[in-house]
Amino acid sequence: MTTSSRLDPVLARIDDTLPQATERLLALLRIPSISTDPAYRAECDRAADWLVEDLRGIGFEAAKRPTPGHPMVTGHAGGAGPHILFYGHYDVQPVDPLDLWERDPFDPQVEDTPKGRVIRGRGASDDKGQLMTFVEACRAWKAVHGTLPARISLFFEGEEESGSPSLVPFMRENAEELRADVALICDTGLFGDSTPAIVTMLRGLLGEEITITGPSKDLHSGMYGGIAMNPIRVLARIIAALHDDQGRVTIPGFYDGVPELPADVAAQWQGLNFDAQGFLGEVGLGQPAGETDRSPLEMIWSRPTCEVNGITGGYTGAGFKTVLPAKASAKISFRLVGQQDPLKIRESFRKMVRDMLPPDCEVSFADHSASAASQMETSHPAFEAARIALSDEWPNPAAYVGCGGSIPIAGHFKTLLGMDAMLIGFGKDDDQIHSPNEKYDLESFHKGIRSWARVLDALSR
Amino acid sequence: MTTSSRLDPVLARIDDTLPQATERLLALLRIPSISTDPAYRAECDRAADWLVEDLRGIGFEAAKRPTPGHPMVTGHAGGAGPHILFYGHYDVQPVDPLDLWERDPFDPQVEDTPKGRVIRGRGASDDKGQLMTFVEACRAWKAVHGTLPARISLFFEGEEESGSPSLVPFMRENAEELRADVALICDTGLFGDSTPAIVTMLRGLLGEEITITGPSKDLHSGMYGGIAMNPIRVLARIIAALHDDQGRVTIPGFYDGVPELPADVAAQWQGLNFDAQGFLGEVGLGQPAGETDRSPLEMIWSRPTCEVNGITGGYTGAGFKTVLPAKASAKISFRLVGQQDPLKIRESFRKMVRDMLPPDCEVSFADHSASAASQMETSHPAFEAARIALSDEWPNPAAYVGCGGSIPIAGHFKTLLGMDAMLIGFGKDDDQIHSPNEKYDLESFHKGIRSWARVLDALSR
Repeated sequence: MTTSSRLDPVLARIDDTLPQATERLLALLRIPSISTDPAYRAECDRAADWLVEDLRGIGFEAAKRPTPGHPMVTGHAGGAGPHILFYGHYDVQPVDPLDLWERDPFDPQVEDTPKGRVIRGRGASDDKGQLMTFVEACRAWKAVHGTLPARISLFFEGEEESGSPSLVPFMRENAEELRADVALICDTGLFGDSTPAIVTMLRGLLGEEITITGPSKDLHSGMYGGIAMNPIRVLARIIAALHDDQGRVTIPGFYDGVPELPADVAAQWQGLNFDAQGFLGEVGLGQPAGETDRSPLEMIWSRPTCEVNGITGGYTGAGFKTVLPAKASAKISFRLVGQQDPLKIRESFRKMVRDMLPPDCEVSFADHSASAASQMETSHPAFEAARIALSDEWPNPAAYVGCGGSIPIAGHFKTLLGMDAMLIGFGKDDDQIHSPNEKYDLESFHKGIRSWARVLDALSR
Repeated sequence: MTTSSRLDPVLARIDDTLPQATERLLALLRIPSISTDPAYRAECDRAADWLVEDLRGIGFEAAKRPTPGHPMVTGHAGGAGPHILFYGHYDVQPVDPLDLWERDPFDPQVEDTPKGRVIRGRGASDDKGQLMTFVEACRAWKAVHGTLPARISLFFEGEEESGSPSLVPFMRENAEELRADVALICDTGLFGDSTPAIVTMLRGLLGEEITITGPSKDLHSGMYGGIAMNPIRVLARIIAALHDDQGRVTIPGFYDGVPELPADVAAQWQGLNFDAQGFLGEVGLGQPAGETDRSPLEMIWSRPTCEVNGITGGYTGAGFKTVLPAKASAKISFRLVGQQDPLKIRESFRKMVRDMLPPDCEVSFADHSASAASQMETSHPAFEAARIALSDEWPNPAAYVGCGGSIPIAGHFKTLLGMDAMLIGFGKDDDQIHSPNEKYDLESFHKGIRSWARVLDALSR
């Protein structure tokens, strides 16, 4: 690690002012900005106002930007150097079941725990705490140097937890304002507890709901059992046929566009020493249940999947009813990778289902999401610069990792604005986001702020 | 058809007094004796009282017999001739959804319809109307001859629609009183609209509920999709494996004790010219979906089945959640025939399920009913006598038929009292029992009464 007359005083300032930064985060966490519940509409607005005021205090030209839903917040500052866009979201998940919280989710506090100090409250990790790591880095830089090291735009959303209905229209309408040299997104986590991570691949998501209908009404199995088509049996056969004995998806063409992992990435992932046993053991499982010839990290990061997320049909209450149901349905989703085409897979899936239908059965389909996978261009020099900067801050060198989930904003930056995005975050696996007792380690917050200062320094040299 | 100085005046009396008989049935139908709903407990009691009083009016030594649940009603009369026990039930199904009824279900009335006059109201067919056919036959016989042609015992239950919890204990405690030469049960239907039927085989019923558990909690399919065991997929594979491509059940030993249909029965069924197209067409189906090498009547009467009556797992609400569920469950029932042993099949089924479980999955089972099939001894001379008597009343000769459902009382008469039972009833397929707008054709009621007069005559010669 080298010393830097430009960076070192910023890091020192961050260390010195951590109590004040924490107080600011606590203030933001007190605003119950639950985006999915209309009862909290005014609170979302209040969170946006709080951010606008805070950003103005740092010197950003900040504004609350109306949408048909909750407002966006934008801020612009600096001028020289590259143009960096930072994204985060200020809305939070609902808090129910409230009785499982050990404190009021909107009365946040710093708590001492056996594993260190944590900031406890709804949104501490997802995403107010992460969002504020970047804001605090900017504040410290500005305080030390009187100016920012780059042209920086901030872009905060208030609908991330409720499907982002206004996001794409807003990005289209304000494309010129938002387009930058590179985008930074802080909504992900560390790899393990001390390895910073840059997400370079995100899986896409295709959701399909299928409903099989047979008889025109529910039948009595005494009268019709043995002669009538049973839609549950038909649905079960279809679901059972979606995978072969090796765990591969059997839909024709499903693997078109699925790349083999490049040797260098495979080697790097190998070096992460992923603890699959621990990962599965946390949720009561003992062994990987995916494709038999793939490594655990491939299964969750770089291989496509087909999963059944829900199924229902017939009588599901207490006791027993000997009904032959008129219909049965299932929600099935696919995680997509590489160049897999969601719409082609939808068509192929539907054809396969139709081809398996016996006489007297019909099927209807309902569309849900259909987004392709994202693969970042790690050859962009910002990636390697950020990776080295993060490695300077944390005990372990930073890793390029995959992410099994889908973070649509990353794809939107690419497709709508032509920008590569770097997903860097400091959450930990036990942060309990979306669950009761959400927390953000004070270490995540502190080293997160320091990390962004280092990344800003690296990207603006 | 021969004339009979003994029978003909009874039939004439039945014809002459049909309006009064109908009024009596309407009075009984006005009592809302819903056995499954505790709010109607007093009404069940009132229906039992009504029957006791009515039977006493005919000359029966009748009594309301207490049980831990709703009371039984017994009546005894006559002395000479064979001892005949008649069974029916005075309780009825709930009436919801009430808004689908075109009249108050407990304000019954005789209605003119395009297909003839019908008695409309809850219980009209199931089973008050059918029960009263036998009572009215006894009344007419007594009125004409001053005595009954046989020793007759009546046995009316008030819990048939709520699982008959008191039935077996009551039969055990009163076995001597109830044991007769033959039992008659009136709770079934005609074959078609003009062919009387005697049920000679009833399928048994085995109910199993299985729950597959995988992860210790619901998982996010972005994080765990591809590596975690999915219980819905496991359950679907198990269900899909329960039948082969020919529709046969694959559980080892399942067909042990399943007899081939005797040639004479097969020929007789062939002669019934069962309209499978019409039977299936009524419920929106076009072709039999059972074992590919079996006739439609075999499928519903004499072949065992395995059906899924309900399935549930994961997210089943509106929209989509990408959850990997911790568990999935299904209710599965088997209709049994011949000498199939319900407990052996339960064991074999459970072993098959356990053998199909992948690592990290567990299964739990819940018991439901387990009753063997009933096969009547049609060589008993009462069967042929009754068959001829019924043939004299109706346009078509009477048929020996199977019944795909399970009527436990028939098995109880055999196993607890050593009696054969003849199931004879006059319901029609469109009676809408258990559904809104239940009805009983006035023709069913009228010819039902006449049928019993003929059967009494035939059995007491």
